Amino acid sequence: MNLFDIKDPSFLKQMNIKELKQLAEDIRLFLIDSITKTGGHLSSNLGSVELIIALHYVFNSPEDVFIFDVGHQAYVHKILTGRINEFHTLRQTGGLSGYINYQESVHDQWESGHAGTALSALTGVLYAKHLKEEKGQGIAVIGDASMTNGMAFEALNLLGTDPIAKGIVILNDNEMSISKSVGSISKTLNRIRSNRLFIKMKRFWQMILPQFILRFLGRVKRGLRGFFQRQNIFEDLGYVYIGPIDGHDIRGLIYNLKRIKNLNKSVVLHIITEKGKGHTEAENDKIGNFHGVSKPSLKKEAVISWSELMAKSMDELQSHLKTFVIMPAMEVGAAFGSFAKKYKDRYIDVGIAEEHAATMAASLAHQGIPVYLPLYATFAQRAFDQILNDIARSNHHVVIGIDRAGIVGEDGSTHQGLFDVSMFYLMPNVKIVMPYDAKEASNLLYYGFMKQKNPFVIRYPRGSVSFDISKDSIVFEDIEPTWTILEEGTDLSIISYGPSLDLLKKTVKAMGLSATIINARFIKPIDFNLCHFVMQSGRPVLVYEELSNAGSLYPQILKFMAEQKYSNPITSMSITEQIVEHGHYEDVLKSLGMDATGIEQTIQKLIS
Amino acid sequence: MNLFDIKDPSFLKQMNIKELKQLAEDIRLFLIDSITKTGGHLSSNLGSVELIIALHYVFNSPEDVFIFDVGHQAYVHKILTGRINEFHTLRQTGGLSGYINYQESVHDQWESGHAGTALSALTGVLYAKHLKEEKGQGIAVIGDASMTNGMAFEALNLLGTDPIAKGIVILNDNEMSISKSVGSISKTLNRIRSNRLFIKMKRFWQMILPQFILRFLGRVKRGLRGFFQRQNIFEDLGYVYIGPIDGHDIRGLIYNLKRIKNLNKSVVLHIITEKGKGHTEAENDKIGNFHGVSKPSLKKEAVISWSELMAKSMDELQSHLKTFVIMPAMEVGAAFGSFAKKYKDRYIDVGIAEEHAATMAASLAHQGIPVYLPLYATFAQRAFDQILNDIARSNHHVVIGIDRAGIVGEDGSTHQGLFDVSMFYLMPNVKIVMPYDAKEASNLLYYGFMKQKNPFVIRYPRGSVSFDISKDSIVFEDIEPTWTILEEGTDLSIISYGPSLDLLKKTVKAMGLSATIINARFIKPIDFNLCHFVMQSGRPVLVYEELSNAGSLYPQILKFMAEQKYSNPITSMSITEQIVEHGHYEDVLKSLGMDATGIEQTIQKLIS
Repeated sequence: MNLFDIKDPSFLKQMNIKELKQLAEDIRLFLIDSITKTGGHLSSNLGSVELIIALHYVFNSPEDVFIFDVGHQAYVHKILTGRINEFHTLRQTGGLSGYINYQESVHDQWESGHAGTALSALTGVLYAKHLKEEKGQGIAVIGDASMTNGMAFEALNLLGTDPIAKGIVILNDNEMSISKSVGSISKTLNRIRSNRLFIKMKRFWQMILPQFILRFLGRVKRGLRGFFQRQNIFEDLGYVYIGPIDGHDIRGLIYNLKRIKNLNKSVVLHIITEKGKGHTEAENDKIGNFHGVSKPSLKKEAVISWSELMAKSMDELQSHLKTFVIMPAMEVGAAFGSFAKKYKDRYIDVGIAEEHAATMAASLAHQGIPVYLPLYATFAQRAFDQILNDIARSNHHVVIGIDRAGIVGEDGSTHQGLFDVSMFYLMPNVKIVMPYDAKEASNLLYYGFMKQKNPFVIRYPRGSVSFDISKDSIVFEDIEPTWTILEEGTDLSIISYGPSLDLLKKTVKAMGLSATIINARFIKPIDFNLCHFVMQSGRPVLVYEELSNAGSLYPQILKFMAEQKYSNPITSMSITEQIVEHGHYEDVLKSLGMDATGIEQTIQKLIS
Repeated sequence: MNLFDIKDPSFLKQMNIKELKQLAEDIRLFLIDSITKTGGHLSSNLGSVELIIALHYVFNSPEDVFIFDVGHQAYVHKILTGRINEFHTLRQTGGLSGYINYQESVHDQWESGHAGTALSALTGVLYAKHLKEEKGQGIAVIGDASMTNGMAFEALNLLGTDPIAKGIVILNDNEMSISKSVGSISKTLNRIRSNRLFIKMKRFWQMILPQFILRFLGRVKRGLRGFFQRQNIFEDLGYVYIGPIDGHDIRGLIYNLKRIKNLNKSVVLHIITEKGKGHTEAENDKIGNFHGVSKPSLKKEAVISWSELMAKSMDELQSHLKTFVIMPAMEVGAAFGSFAKKYKDRYIDVGIAEEHAATMAASLAHQGIPVYLPLYATFAQRAFDQILNDIARSNHHVVIGIDRAGIVGEDGSTHQGLFDVSMFYLMPNVKIVMPYDAKEASNLLYYGFMKQKNPFVIRYPRGSVSFDISKDSIVFEDIEPTWTILEEGTDLSIISYGPSLDLLKKTVKAMGLSATIINARFIKPIDFNLCHFVMQSGRPVLVYEELSNAGSLYPQILKFMAEQKYSNPITSMSITEQIVEHGHYEDVLKSLGMDATGIEQTIQKLIS
């Protein structure tokens, strides 16, 4: 079988177990080869090769609907549904998405990107099938880490006893979250899965005994288990629970999926997989370094990631102020590994539980403990209500670090950090800042903890910042809550914040213009003095923001002008009312008209 | 004991069981008398009288921290901490809050208002005590309905195995949510609690046997239970589980709370209470009519509540289009009781699970089923990420009914509907409308379902709208996606939406002015033609919005003016960057300067 000939999953039905195993091997080798070139989610996809083959073997997509929680583990599904020839474009501009994508295939029936949506989506699919009297089943594949997320539980609780929806939940248990699983569910699964001998015996039986005896034994076993074994949480919640079974044993997967196909109750099939299966380094990675693999980069400059810089600054801050850090499953991504080791008693990883994280932060702050709550911009959305009610409304001193603010590039539309400023701007009491460079970043963090008593949001982008780890050190300096003038000029004024300012400076210079360039590092509240300074010149104004400006800095400046009766010509550049797809940062910026060319055109029009 | 002499809970410690029972009776009578006069949450408070007395008897607040989930069931806590003399002002302007309130008492240590925060707050309290090396325990009281909420589960999952936080969770199980509990947790609790004989026997033993024998029997019982009885979900999650016990038996409560006080593990104490205990009508209410009691009103005009109007319109719509309704626990409040009965197969109550509700709605819509998702403005915040990612980003046709939009009055700061427009404005593809009157409401709903394929938000306030149920009927008419001119005038232009327009019309008339008054019923996107019409007159403009205008209509109009180079004097009235406390609607409006007087002053200043 040449993988590159696969058009749809129908070819699988003719294969025998040996051929399916060979197929799994071929796909695994292809994935390792392909993803190490393009970058992407390696570990989770290596872990789900056999599962996805077995699913497509037993069920008939798209009549049977497959739902992948998050969707970054569905590369094999993409291969089996005829997309292997586009894998060299994975996550690249105009290329194959790293997630499930409605546009790519009829087999992609639930787009996600954020953890925990699969069971709610499954319920929706099952209700729709019922209402439309359509054939087919619904199967949701969800990882153990997603299962600890609140909304997954809301659906799990409802689906188990739903009178209409009979769903199949595949718990793909690889014993780690993006970093590692936490909490009781994780320990419960651990207890269940520890019985590996059981798995091996089961596999042995399945090989040697005929089906009808297996079915009989199954009934006896369930009877015995009902008597001797304690019920687990899934059975408590109304599901038929099957497992744990070896998620790399195609024969066992097929055997169990066929059983499940004929059941008339909601089922949890618990499978044990190894994240990174078949790739030695990824298999041995218990931290999460191989969760996402980056493309090999060509050169190393004196830079570190913004995440690392913030983590280092938090470390340094501890000698001034003991703070507590609540991490929602992003220890590796947020570069807090060494902080976690160093300050064990001031750090907790709560898993993919942003809502809990925000409210726990508020509660700690209410008891007088200063808290740092790092959240990716996109995942902060999950804690909107908790941040608004428990932190902002009550004016609690929580410093929220918003990581991956702005365009994120390869992860695409579900991961863009475009909404945080508008989202936080509507929250009373909250201050929002964004540093221009490394120095400002640590100073703003220091300011947020030492000079503030309000909720304080410090946002920073994906990517790297100039900081020579061998020479530079973090020294905190006092900072005033003002904007700064980066350049003074006569043709126009430009207001922006963050590293975008560099692009603006360069572009203005290239155009041969002279502009007053303002670093609006305090996004909320705005600096009235510098607003007056800018407007009094009478010169035209450009406000550039790499995000949605529905409720961001630009409207604030317009409000200021209306109040103060300024009528300078003013225009804005932003990413508003747009869905931003995946691609390289520069390509995406360009496609949105936010790059140097776009800036040039906007300025030309503004000053003409 | 004269209730009105209570200053703090210390007096309880000297009381014997008989006196405590008498106290419970006195408090219950007081509550029934007081709440039926002032309005408030009657049922849940009658259900927790004995529990709260027992808590204050066994523990020492504020050293021991009490956390009430939501906080509307803590009236007895208010009485025992010395606030009974203010009960005649309950929920009224400047009066006692209906919820936990930091300003009212040192015994109020966790403000909430939205379900499911208690266990996260408890975890925060316990970590803070650990970090500060402070004495005292943490006790969270949470209802069975809140327990099915996602964030409650996130915390429940983590707390059970937390190495530092040892918390006491009191599951106050009254067998109903605000409407009724749903899902497996609810059924599991039902199974557990069905054994009422068990409760009665336990009470009997506790009365006749000495402590050491009880302890021994307890150990035997646990041993036997471990062998014979299936473990329940709380034990699965790592808790010591005690219960179910009778939540109205003060002796049993005290006995068990004392046991728990000395345990060194996180505990779930499951108590069974009757919502409305001691008030016959409220006891027999299985629907939720007595959840919140309104003050008796003096006269009935030809009005219905906006909620009823929307529910009726949805009913009427079914003859044009079969839709599905997903209700997050607000069946009574949203007036969908009769719809639920009439269209059993097109309706689901998912409990307090807004996140699940929004994602399930998206999934149904993706499968081609039109969905109506009614959410109170304040609770919609819980589903921010799901609405943004699963509904808006994917452009799914879900019609979201935003109930209680604007100032809500008596419920106070956690319940205000001030953020929905800014929240939805930042979401790509979403349209937002607000009707001015009953006719427009049903027409906009019809438009949203029949003429739209986008996510569509229709917001409406608390309170009532002119509609004579004996004469008027709902007839849908086609509507254009435009603003309308309510009045034309020469002194100024006013842009607003919803029933606020009536106040504006009246005020302008009373001032003897003539104004162009625009009904901006399509809040997003705005009506460019009428914007031009307004601005071309050159007259000053007032934009009035009963909400935060961080990212609402006003900034949009400013953006329009900047783009189109209009420089009309313009000002806004809104409730931005403010925490709005409880009180009567008119009082709150006045205190915010949003009433007739405020409008008059703003207009005077604008046109002078």
